[in-house]
Amino acid sequence: MNILSQNPALQGVVDQHLDATLQDETISRQEALDAINAGTMVLLGNPAHPSIRPLLVGRPSKIKVNANLGTSPFSSDPDLEMQKLAMAKQAGAHAVMDLSTGGDLDAIRRGMIEATDLPLGTVPIYSVAQKLTLQEKDPAEFTWADLRGEIVSQAEQGVDFMTLHCGVTHKGAEYASKRVLGIVSRGGSILARHMRNNDCENPLLENYDELLDVCRKYNVTISLGDGLRPGAGADAGDAAQWEEVVTLGTLVARAREAGVQTMVEGPGHVPLHLVEAEIRGIKQATLNAPLYVLGPLVTDCSPGYDHIAGAIGGALAASSGADFLCYLTPAEHLTLPSPEDVWAGVKASLVAAHAAHIAMGDGEAIRRDLEISQARAKLDWERITELAMDPCLVDARRGEHRREKECAMCGKFCAIRMLDE
Amino acid sequence: MNILSQNPALQGVVDQHLDATLQDETISRQEALDAINAGTMVLLGNPAHPSIRPLLVGRPSKIKVNANLGTSPFSSDPDLEMQKLAMAKQAGAHAVMDLSTGGDLDAIRRGMIEATDLPLGTVPIYSVAQKLTLQEKDPAEFTWADLRGEIVSQAEQGVDFMTLHCGVTHKGAEYASKRVLGIVSRGGSILARHMRNNDCENPLLENYDELLDVCRKYNVTISLGDGLRPGAGADAGDAAQWEEVVTLGTLVARAREAGVQTMVEGPGHVPLHLVEAEIRGIKQATLNAPLYVLGPLVTDCSPGYDHIAGAIGGALAASSGADFLCYLTPAEHLTLPSPEDVWAGVKASLVAAHAAHIAMGDGEAIRRDLEISQARAKLDWERITELAMDPCLVDARRGEHRREKECAMCGKFCAIRMLDE
Repeated sequence: MNILSQNPALQGVVDQHLDATLQDETISRQEALDAINAGTMVLLGNPAHPSIRPLLVGRPSKIKVNANLGTSPFSSDPDLEMQKLAMAKQAGAHAVMDLSTGGDLDAIRRGMIEATDLPLGTVPIYSVAQKLTLQEKDPAEFTWADLRGEIVSQAEQGVDFMTLHCGVTHKGAEYASKRVLGIVSRGGSILARHMRNNDCENPLLENYDELLDVCRKYNVTISLGDGLRPGAGADAGDAAQWEEVVTLGTLVARAREAGVQTMVEGPGHVPLHLVEAEIRGIKQATLNAPLYVLGPLVTDCSPGYDHIAGAIGGALAASSGADFLCYLTPAEHLTLPSPEDVWAGVKASLVAAHAAHIAMGDGEAIRRDLEISQARAKLDWERITELAMDPCLVDARRGEHRREKECAMCGKFCAIRMLDE
Repeated sequence: MNILSQNPALQGVVDQHLDATLQDETISRQEALDAINAGTMVLLGNPAHPSIRPLLVGRPSKIKVNANLGTSPFSSDPDLEMQKLAMAKQAGAHAVMDLSTGGDLDAIRRGMIEATDLPLGTVPIYSVAQKLTLQEKDPAEFTWADLRGEIVSQAEQGVDFMTLHCGVTHKGAEYASKRVLGIVSRGGSILARHMRNNDCENPLLENYDELLDVCRKYNVTISLGDGLRPGAGADAGDAAQWEEVVTLGTLVARAREAGVQTMVEGPGHVPLHLVEAEIRGIKQATLNAPLYVLGPLVTDCSPGYDHIAGAIGGALAASSGADFLCYLTPAEHLTLPSPEDVWAGVKASLVAAHAAHIAMGDGEAIRRDLEISQARAKLDWERITELAMDPCLVDARRGEHRREKECAMCGKFCAIRMLDE
């Protein structure tokens, strides 16, 4: 089957934007069209998002980085979220998600969509659950109509991709209940609670065909949520995770048949020695759909430094086939990120993505590293600064020594100067 | 041959300290003695270092982390270095190096040795070069007697390990001159300049037997410096690097014959896909001597974030056989690290080491991750904080929300609470 021929909204985005999008890639238009049609690459972009600059995610396009933003019930300051949105973009994020769960969710989301040209993703079940809790009802007591209504409403607002935990089955949730750390996905746990309370199957799975119709209409890319992702290294690669992955593979196939773009979300917490096996296994079982990973974190005990644990896993994951790195910030597992955390998280993920690009033989990334090394050989600080991932930081750290030829670490003992004459 | 039987100073350290040292390891006394005798593990500890707590480095002991400290000609504040020394220890570094090149080097070194019970390493050629520059001479115009005298003097002061770039040959330096980024090791470049100016071979190599006699007397562990380590990904695994590695392998063998402990220093800048091959190759070519790596950095263009690029490479390197991770701080390639940089650098390396421990099946590391995950399942913040790599940071980040059951990221939408009743 052919995704584009069934999806006029996507065809419109392709016609209007693909050429511009390809300026940031090193692939031809035909390669892009083939991969979009095959579903191994998606073009994020809802025509209703006014200033959207659509984004390619999946091979053979470059690795991309997403920044999660959004309020919580404890910390709900829309202005701060707008600041974080600006920080994420300035730091180099390729996409953002609004994961707000506190305050006026509709207004926050609309504000972000209006403010950014980056593709914006959401998790619609959060809004559904918030509405219920505001009415003092159980957050899991929604109906399919509630969910569907929210998805349609957000699609109309211009949301570009939505995490929908369609693969959380009754059986998977049962497996997860035996885990060290159960279900750590908020969406996954709300669905599991819904299934448990109502002794039913996942309504997103039961109504998947109808969901596909909605998403096709607006070219909303479904990010098939990993509601059962491992939240502890000890749970990685267990029955719950693979039960969901297997289901997600079937849902990818159905979406492609129906002309709807999908990504697959991946782990989570995965020990270092399992990262490559997990990533290759998931890509294979989900038909090489673009894989969107959260980390993976290679240890459980680094709160405060999870952007680093995530960069280790992310670099290895991306070089093993993951396509889209969701950042982790130094606030992960602890609190909502500050604007500075957002910056640090995006940069850590960009380091991981760049390392993976080099490992995969990406010409542009290799050239950049070569050029900065050549600039170092000449102690050409201007060029080093330009080529660095964070030019302002380089300049700030050089500080009072920025006019000097050697850096303040070595001064006249500079190894390069030592042999330079 | 048997190292201990030839090295009475080491035998003394073993007799006095090995049992205490083994309390931090999971190996038996006999395993330790066998590995020390074989030279695949070293016991860092100079009997002249008053408060020394000797440290095992190399398999089968745990991965260790080193923090580089020290002044530069541009920034020479001994009190600040003492602060950084305290920071390094508090953050969890297992060893430190004093790489000072500015100010009263002798006094700084003596102060650090007196102040710390961590093994302390140095690069004696820095002091030799500094003395010459203070006399307005060429820093490379030293004699073997100058070098030897400095090494003896530092050994008498209690230095536990010394980086000595014995493997930088005339041929290797010649190879390196063809590189994108030549020689990036300060010691290596001083030696290369000396060889070039005097058309001679490396005096550390020429006088290696005499050097071994000095080091054996004080149980100074020779850290065979990687003067030709790649300073750019493009130079990784090139002729210069392997010429030096091959030489280092022969020097390891000669040191073992002479009853002297050695480590081998490794890269450097190495692209992600080459890290495992480099590490396994170096370990094999250097007879499984403990391998002490600087990173490796998996990209060249992340100044300001090199602690992250180094943690990515370090985790992979350690799980491939590297034994000793020299930290990189956010100041790397830019300036001298601040105390905060020291803290960040040590923690990043500890994340990498811990991830590698898990990957290698280390029971203690696996148990710690399991326990923090079990504590998360109970939202037991006290236990989470205890088990985290930086308890104070966890507490500080939780901030005003520290008395609440759920963290401020999810609040009442906590996935764990959702299914908890």
